[in-house]
Amino acid sequence: MKHTKVKDLLNSAPGLHEVKAKGWVRTFRNNQFIALNDGSTINNIQCVVDFANTPEETLKRITTGAAVCVVGTLAESQGAGQKVEIQVSKIEILGDSDPEKFPMQPKKHSLEFLRENAHLRIRTNAFGAIMRVRSTLAFAVHQYFQEKGFFYVNTPIITGSDAEGAGEMFKVTALPFDGTPRTEEGKVNYKEDFFGKETNLTVSGQLEGETYAMALGQIYTFGPTFRAENSNTSRHLAEFWMIEPEVAFNNLADNMDLAEDFIKYVIKYTVDKCGDDLKFLEQRLIEEEKSKPQADRSEMALLEKLSFVMDNNFKRVSYTEAIDILKNSKPNKNKKFQYPVDDWGVDLQSEHERFLVEKHFKCPVILFDYPANIKAFYMRLNEDGKTVRAMDILFPGIGEIVGGSQREERYDVLLEKMKALGIDEKELYWYLDTRRFGSAVHSGFGLGFERLVLFVTGMTNIRDVIPFPRTPQNAEF
Amino acid sequence: MKHTKVKDLLNSAPGLHEVKAKGWVRTFRNNQFIALNDGSTINNIQCVVDFANTPEETLKRITTGAAVCVVGTLAESQGAGQKVEIQVSKIEILGDSDPEKFPMQPKKHSLEFLRENAHLRIRTNAFGAIMRVRSTLAFAVHQYFQEKGFFYVNTPIITGSDAEGAGEMFKVTALPFDGTPRTEEGKVNYKEDFFGKETNLTVSGQLEGETYAMALGQIYTFGPTFRAENSNTSRHLAEFWMIEPEVAFNNLADNMDLAEDFIKYVIKYTVDKCGDDLKFLEQRLIEEEKSKPQADRSEMALLEKLSFVMDNNFKRVSYTEAIDILKNSKPNKNKKFQYPVDDWGVDLQSEHERFLVEKHFKCPVILFDYPANIKAFYMRLNEDGKTVRAMDILFPGIGEIVGGSQREERYDVLLEKMKALGIDEKELYWYLDTRRFGSAVHSGFGLGFERLVLFVTGMTNIRDVIPFPRTPQNAEF
Repeated sequence: MKHTKVKDLLNSAPGLHEVKAKGWVRTFRNNQFIALNDGSTINNIQCVVDFANTPEETLKRITTGAAVCVVGTLAESQGAGQKVEIQVSKIEILGDSDPEKFPMQPKKHSLEFLRENAHLRIRTNAFGAIMRVRSTLAFAVHQYFQEKGFFYVNTPIITGSDAEGAGEMFKVTALPFDGTPRTEEGKVNYKEDFFGKETNLTVSGQLEGETYAMALGQIYTFGPTFRAENSNTSRHLAEFWMIEPEVAFNNLADNMDLAEDFIKYVIKYTVDKCGDDLKFLEQRLIEEEKSKPQADRSEMALLEKLSFVMDNNFKRVSYTEAIDILKNSKPNKNKKFQYPVDDWGVDLQSEHERFLVEKHFKCPVILFDYPANIKAFYMRLNEDGKTVRAMDILFPGIGEIVGGSQREERYDVLLEKMKALGIDEKELYWYLDTRRFGSAVHSGFGLGFERLVLFVTGMTNIRDVIPFPRTPQNAEF
Repeated sequence: MKHTKVKDLLNSAPGLHEVKAKGWVRTFRNNQFIALNDGSTINNIQCVVDFANTPEETLKRITTGAAVCVVGTLAESQGAGQKVEIQVSKIEILGDSDPEKFPMQPKKHSLEFLRENAHLRIRTNAFGAIMRVRSTLAFAVHQYFQEKGFFYVNTPIITGSDAEGAGEMFKVTALPFDGTPRTEEGKVNYKEDFFGKETNLTVSGQLEGETYAMALGQIYTFGPTFRAENSNTSRHLAEFWMIEPEVAFNNLADNMDLAEDFIKYVIKYTVDKCGDDLKFLEQRLIEEEKSKPQADRSEMALLEKLSFVMDNNFKRVSYTEAIDILKNSKPNKNKKFQYPVDDWGVDLQSEHERFLVEKHFKCPVILFDYPANIKAFYMRLNEDGKTVRAMDILFPGIGEIVGGSQREERYDVLLEKMKALGIDEKELYWYLDTRRFGSAVHSGFGLGFERLVLFVTGMTNIRDVIPFPRTPQNAEF
């Protein structure tokens, strides 16, 4: 007999036929009640062991973490919180779990401790929930774009171009540090490296994505990107997953519409599919915040917050308006900002973004039309000659979740900008070619997937929403 | 007025209302007929220009590759091959394309030439079709697993463990080649590197995936993997995408069932969605093979071959049986194999696999129960003590498309195997933990995504089924 998943058993009606379940023991109470979980759902199925007719030796081996196979009938449950339970007629221990050694005992563990045990933390309720939500969000991303006729493009991870400028890059090499091949001038001879040139890990697939958008019309990427920056914060990873749609003929307003519609869709999809996991995570957050002063607690419970984002328009505000609001804000006048806002043109700091989103507008905000000189070279220059068609989407508690722009489609303007910034036009000839042959208005954005998972799960440290986080001084597993 | 996608226009009924289309000119005949494509489909829409009332200057700019916007009415087409066409009332040139310079002129280009222009080849019919098929296959992968209740797991790309043993690895580092930090003994001081240790690009997410399968039950990965091997063949890439499902409680037979069902599903999904693209690719292959002698041409046309795979069981053959067949085969007896097959225990070469699949069985073949010493350390040892529960799926024209196994779930046996092979148990303590705590039978496999795309598109060089291929001496774009 094949075993049935716990999720399906819990949705079944009681009956006299035999069922089989396999999973891991979460708890074992009174030598009688196993809470069995197989990862298919956050909910355990209660398995009632006939302890009078089960060998003592077997009962001893039913410990937290052990893998077991039970056979029995599905009966109406007398206990609270579940409709059915398994009246066990036969139990087999598949794999033991020494209670003296298994680190994931049923008690509260700190998130730090769990991070050190990233290979086992997935066996806890919280991480099971987080990673099921993550998986569902990822699928929602694909489904959204595919339904809209976008094509998924795998842009390269190893890149020969270092002109993207989005951040510090990791070197990829097959050359040895000892006896590195050198040119006659004593420089590293990258011609002898695997790719015959210097190569790095990509920081963004955007530029390559644009070449595809200018042929397939609507594309998206969803892959890993990298930053070799020494940012040891709760919002930064050295390796993270990014989603980058790019659409021919879209202007900045279309781009904002797409980003907002997309985010609402993936949240709605996940709320619909992951109700039990999100309810658990909502409760987890409430418990966690109990130790905080009232003022530091979330204003809304997790599911209420997600509904709020789905049901309300994101507020669209130009950079210039935002600067006005910030200049005249209380914290600015009372000198509470670490970086005072006085002049148009300054880059916004996290404290400013948080003020706008969390205090002033109290909803997701799309800031647009930034000063040209604080944004990337490929962004479309506005007619005012000083701002570009950039947009950032800011989320409460998260900060920037999306960065995007309408792209500079005019060959001459783009070339001039690259020259002014010292970007090698030979290096990026292929990017310039998109503007030489059949150029057109187009736009896109990048969304950091882990920041989205943070927002939806209510977790606060980005290391807790990716299976095996990579951060400075940490590449375990 | 918003523009409508070409795909949707082609599916519309003629009418008197105005429509707008944007796209790129594929050809312009007789100063009158534009074949317009926007990437949404392989099919162009014919746009009939009123050349008598269009300025000469504009007509001159309607060249292959130019981006244009046309407004007009959708009329029944008089021409062959299309139901509707646009009777253009207004045309605007969005972006010019100098016919003297645009490399993608409407003529036959060699695949080599197109590879050198990987940023523009996507503007050809063939590459548009290939990449739409690739995107559809990728979505089918996600949909298959999500429908079956698998969870998508992003295993790490940068890995601190080099014990996976699947192939040569690329080094990832932020250390400089000049003035590399050294220990007192003169060795490279990786403590000063970004992660505080030596790190590489992953060759497989399997080991990390197993830790998740032993908690979530059914998981899959789908991400980039890397090999720093100097294999300049039409079947190898240094960077490629791999799909790796892993299932708790599955034995080798379950694993074969899963792999076969999965492959049939994604092919069926793609055939259903990409009919026009596949018909084009089928025709392309027929044309290409016309220059070959009859014996070297494909026995079946592309769609017939795909139907054959969907409709027939894969042949399951043990390694031992396969060796018997090969030993007694004509090419072996006539010494036509480069590597003669005489003894049980030899590794199978590509020529042997091809003989089994293409000549002997003439269908996809699953080989299983390989000798332990030609397979990886983590595979389940059979009771005979000399074979392991490994399986490879071999496809005609492609060779190995899937490699998988039931995993060794017994702690002691696994540890002994690792020791015998000199694999550091401290390095892989986390992998061993899955066998220390609640171990259970489990199985999984890896499928090289590009090989699947090769098979479905009928292309023959793996560089032509990934947007920007990475191979020895090549990391352009």
